[in-house]
Amino acid sequence: AETAGPWRRRSSGTWRGQEEMSIDPADELKRLRASIDNIDAAVVHMLAERFKATKAVGELKAANNLPPADKAREAEQIARLRKLANDAELDPDFAEKFLAFIVTEVIRHHEKLQGKG
Amino acid sequence: AETAGPWRRRSSGTWRGQEEMSIDPADELKRLRASIDNIDAAVVHMLAERFKATKAVGELKAANNLPPADKAREAEQIARLRKLANDAELDPDFAEKFLAFIVTEVIRHHEKLQGKG
Repeated sequence: AETAGPWRRRSSGTWRGQEEMSIDPADELKRLRASIDNIDAAVVHMLAERFKATKAVGELKAANNLPPADKAREAEQIARLRKLANDAELDPDFAEKFLAFIVTEVIRHHEKLQGKG
Repeated sequence: AETAGPWRRRSSGTWRGQEEMSIDPADELKRLRASIDNIDAAVVHMLAERFKATKAVGELKAANNLPPADKAREAEQIARLRKLANDAELDPDFAEKFLAFIVTEVIRHHEKLQGKG
């Protein structure tokens, strides 16, 4: 019932014995934005941790003369993320674009580190 | 000691009474990649949840004739994320680029919905 406010045009009636709830759109907007802000904070912290891991991978590869790129690994990552996205009802194309966006930044970091060394 | 493998060139010696640990680079790479995969799964699920929230915001705004864009809200989001990124040792410019990347997708979703309606 919490999400069945009057702005939900899809809800065509009320449940038996339940009155239509009137939710202030401004309150509802505030609630949704608070959730978005919480999610963004979680993602920023996840990404901070991810860049620590990719930095360690870069250092490990450099110290052991391993090639920076690994096409098989990348293909696996894409396939796995697309499947996860699909299961979570997220557009798999967006998940793939997102991974590409992150990987572009990882490459930028690695190039920066190599330039400094 | 777990992270003080021989590939860490920064580590110039061993702790008193502790022998230099020899970590197989392939094992270490596997471990780091498993962490990256866990983080990516977490982020994909967070983003799935985020798009549910922005979809609800779009519907709420449409039903209440609220303007789709809100420059004040966007400026607050950017400032907040930059601060969070800074505290988490993530590049604030990247955090801002990341938000812009997500918002572009949100706008694409909204336009798609409007086109269908």
